[in-house]
Amino acid sequence: MNGAEAFIGTLSDCGVEVCFANPGTSEMQLVAAVDRQHGMRAILGLFEGVVTGAADGYGRMADKPAVTLLHLGPGLGNGLANLHNARRAGSPIINMVGDHATYHLHYDAPLTSDALGVARPMSDWVRVSKSPQDLAHAGAEAFAMAQSYPGKIATVVVPADHAWSEGAAKVAVPVLPATAKAPAEAVAAAAAALQGEGPKALFLGGRALRADVLVQAGRIAAATGARLITETFAARHQRGAGRVATEKLPYFGEQAEAYLAEFKTIVFCGSEPPVSFFAYPGKPSWLSPPGATLVRLASMREDAAAALGALADALAAPAEPALVQAPTQFPWEPGKLNSANLGAVLAELLPTNCIVSDESATSGAASYAMCGGAAQHDWLQLTGGAIGQGLPLAVGAAVACPDRKVIALQADGGGMYTLQALWTMAREQLDVTTVILNNGSYAILNIELMRVGVQNPGPKALSMLDLTNPAINWSKLSEGMGVPAVRVDTAEGFHAALKDALAVKGPRLIEALL
Amino acid sequence: MNGAEAFIGTLSDCGVEVCFANPGTSEMQLVAAVDRQHGMRAILGLFEGVVTGAADGYGRMADKPAVTLLHLGPGLGNGLANLHNARRAGSPIINMVGDHATYHLHYDAPLTSDALGVARPMSDWVRVSKSPQDLAHAGAEAFAMAQSYPGKIATVVVPADHAWSEGAAKVAVPVLPATAKAPAEAVAAAAAALQGEGPKALFLGGRALRADVLVQAGRIAAATGARLITETFAARHQRGAGRVATEKLPYFGEQAEAYLAEFKTIVFCGSEPPVSFFAYPGKPSWLSPPGATLVRLASMREDAAAALGALADALAAPAEPALVQAPTQFPWEPGKLNSANLGAVLAELLPTNCIVSDESATSGAASYAMCGGAAQHDWLQLTGGAIGQGLPLAVGAAVACPDRKVIALQADGGGMYTLQALWTMAREQLDVTTVILNNGSYAILNIELMRVGVQNPGPKALSMLDLTNPAINWSKLSEGMGVPAVRVDTAEGFHAALKDALAVKGPRLIEALL
Repeated sequence: MNGAEAFIGTLSDCGVEVCFANPGTSEMQLVAAVDRQHGMRAILGLFEGVVTGAADGYGRMADKPAVTLLHLGPGLGNGLANLHNARRAGSPIINMVGDHATYHLHYDAPLTSDALGVARPMSDWVRVSKSPQDLAHAGAEAFAMAQSYPGKIATVVVPADHAWSEGAAKVAVPVLPATAKAPAEAVAAAAAALQGEGPKALFLGGRALRADVLVQAGRIAAATGARLITETFAARHQRGAGRVATEKLPYFGEQAEAYLAEFKTIVFCGSEPPVSFFAYPGKPSWLSPPGATLVRLASMREDAAAALGALADALAAPAEPALVQAPTQFPWEPGKLNSANLGAVLAELLPTNCIVSDESATSGAASYAMCGGAAQHDWLQLTGGAIGQGLPLAVGAAVACPDRKVIALQADGGGMYTLQALWTMAREQLDVTTVILNNGSYAILNIELMRVGVQNPGPKALSMLDLTNPAINWSKLSEGMGVPAVRVDTAEGFHAALKDALAVKGPRLIEALL
Repeated sequence: MNGAEAFIGTLSDCGVEVCFANPGTSEMQLVAAVDRQHGMRAILGLFEGVVTGAADGYGRMADKPAVTLLHLGPGLGNGLANLHNARRAGSPIINMVGDHATYHLHYDAPLTSDALGVARPMSDWVRVSKSPQDLAHAGAEAFAMAQSYPGKIATVVVPADHAWSEGAAKVAVPVLPATAKAPAEAVAAAAAALQGEGPKALFLGGRALRADVLVQAGRIAAATGARLITETFAARHQRGAGRVATEKLPYFGEQAEAYLAEFKTIVFCGSEPPVSFFAYPGKPSWLSPPGATLVRLASMREDAAAALGALADALAAPAEPALVQAPTQFPWEPGKLNSANLGAVLAELLPTNCIVSDESATSGAASYAMCGGAAQHDWLQLTGGAIGQGLPLAVGAAVACPDRKVIALQADGGGMYTLQALWTMAREQLDVTTVILNNGSYAILNIELMRVGVQNPGPKALSMLDLTNPAINWSKLSEGMGVPAVRVDTAEGFHAALKDALAVKGPRLIEALL
């Protein structure tokens, strides 16, 4: 077999089942190897940001990596933003990036680039294959690296001649690295801190936001009275009625700082102490209160379930968790659609066990809050702040979980970065209902303009944050890529459209005019 | 003034008139500075690949840089592919990439990234400002670097606190570097070689493809009988009836090798000896004939006009060039639209002094050939092979040359990477007629699949090169972003639609179903 076949065959043996691809000439042997590999599904994206964002969504839901197929340095470049988000999410992804044949590189042909240099900033691990025989080894190493708890971005650069040369062979499935455990001293320190006086919080992120792990957090809350707070942007948060509920740290730094100010003790599990998303003149970056006792129980890379279980045991916590969420609904008024009644309608209709890909920005905050007591669901957020994640993430989640409805809550500004994801939804007939929150604006930037101290912005500055000239018609964009679409501007219209979309399997788009 | 104002003010003093922008929170002070800067136009792109591709088109036509505004490492990542193309084109571009405030970086907030690492692979020069006062110096240096003949990609990473801090001042417009001249020995060697026996060629690229420089090449052809051959993908080629005509090197390596095989002498000006775009098993990378005399008259970075002028003088060439293109038209048959009758219609209707942004791939080869004897025009091509350049390039060319009609010949596959460019065309009412060559396929990859030796590709492989499931409706995509559109599938339909579009000023899209 050739190097490409050995590489793909090894990944398949490891359990990799999906290849999200946007290939070029230098990857044709990899395309052929995926083609021949039984049990490996190939899913085309028309832009690399769709490919890497879909791999992120897949990884978050499958807890194992898909493999991407990307064309040289520029193709990888197009995928970097969503790799950045995936890395911040701790998602497992294997990237295979084609490169020129080794002997062709020195000719500096037009597409020659420093693929390794492009890969490094957004990868946890990068490797160029050394030979056709080495390619399968690189694949096995990449798989083990990608599966490092909770997940890592592992990138293999594949010279074309390594892919096409014969004489390669598959290699054994690697032994996966053991998940790091929180040290016993950390558990003891956390237990002691939570038994102290004053207001206390357990600050949760990463894998600590899975339902079974949250039960441990709820037990700890029952034992200590600690409040449960989550990071502002979660990779995958299992929520809904009957699950242990958490509070969310506000986005803006000064609000977050005020929110945390009362605590004397904060124990962190699956997250570092929060910092403000951006710096602002005269505002703090560090958000935890001065003088509070801060204890790191477990980092994002240490086993959250084991750490919280050990902590609950150390506290002799009751079996039943506190803070179990009661079912809640919110009444909504018909009439002009706004973020509040949109959120209430969504909470009412949210299907049990659905997945929400949330890149709703300013317009979706109410939806997040109102769905906390809705039917149980997984809520996926923009972890790295690089907008253009939401639609691709929905693609990948739907591929990983074909039996679950996916709802993409997507702000218009961010949606325009990777709108090509709609085409892949149509092509694969993915069960995704996309809700575009069309407010005709980079609304968050209008707020940020003031917050960084710009007084009296002029027409040029404001025009750079405005998306109404011309207004974007998302329904036409959607239909142009094969996804049926409808526009609504009232709460009752949104209710009818969402009910209709959720009743069928397959992609739909609702353009919510706010 | 603050650092941002000093930076933007200095660039404005240098003559920078346009900012292509896709800003985020960390760039709000730069947005405000552009806002306040008289004589600096701000043009919003909804995706960074539009921004950098537009800067490329602007640089090719204006021969001076625009400045881009990009958001941190991920935003720059989205712009890398078109910076790669721009670098290969020798286009002048200044990138300003916002970054977190210096004191905020170590907190590793969600959007923290290695902006410098992302910048390096596709920049000729990179610099992080050292202080608010240093920012204007970095801008002046970037301008001088960008204007290095024929142009370079100069990237400045701007920490937010350097932008917002007061106490900065503009700096003087820098002295531009002198353009390197071809050495006298190179001119003498080229003259001697072209006076030798056997078939000979002058191989031209870069700035040698401007009309006035081609006159010198035509004089040399008149004196020596040398044929004039151009690189396959030209940044900006001034062609048309009455100008000195050239032949174009074929794309596929073996065809290019055969094309050059007869030559005993090849003199290169503005280009290195050509190599195959990709490597293929058993096929050559190097295309020049063994045993031929190869002389480098001038590299892409040496003054092409001066070099060819000196060579013409050394050869005592006649004042009148040879190979002046006669006006040519091609008859076309009504009926089903194909690349041949599309090319003939285009050649017939091409407006005098128009600009063609050509990312037409397989479907557009006939158009290039048939327009050689049409009205005079500038023909801009995909220099770096990273698809998704054509529409943004048209945006930038139209901004640089508001009095010239721009025609974007765009293949459907490549067009999908940066379709957001249509929105900027509508917003700025740019005089661009976009022709989408919709063949529902990555057609080039179907060819390449065979050429790299993949036999009997299966359904998965072929599906990865197919864009018909679902078929994309470009007219809806275009109308969704505010550009009026029409679909045609006959030659007479295309003729009518193109005539109609060219008769008005402003953006139009013609979806040519092939």
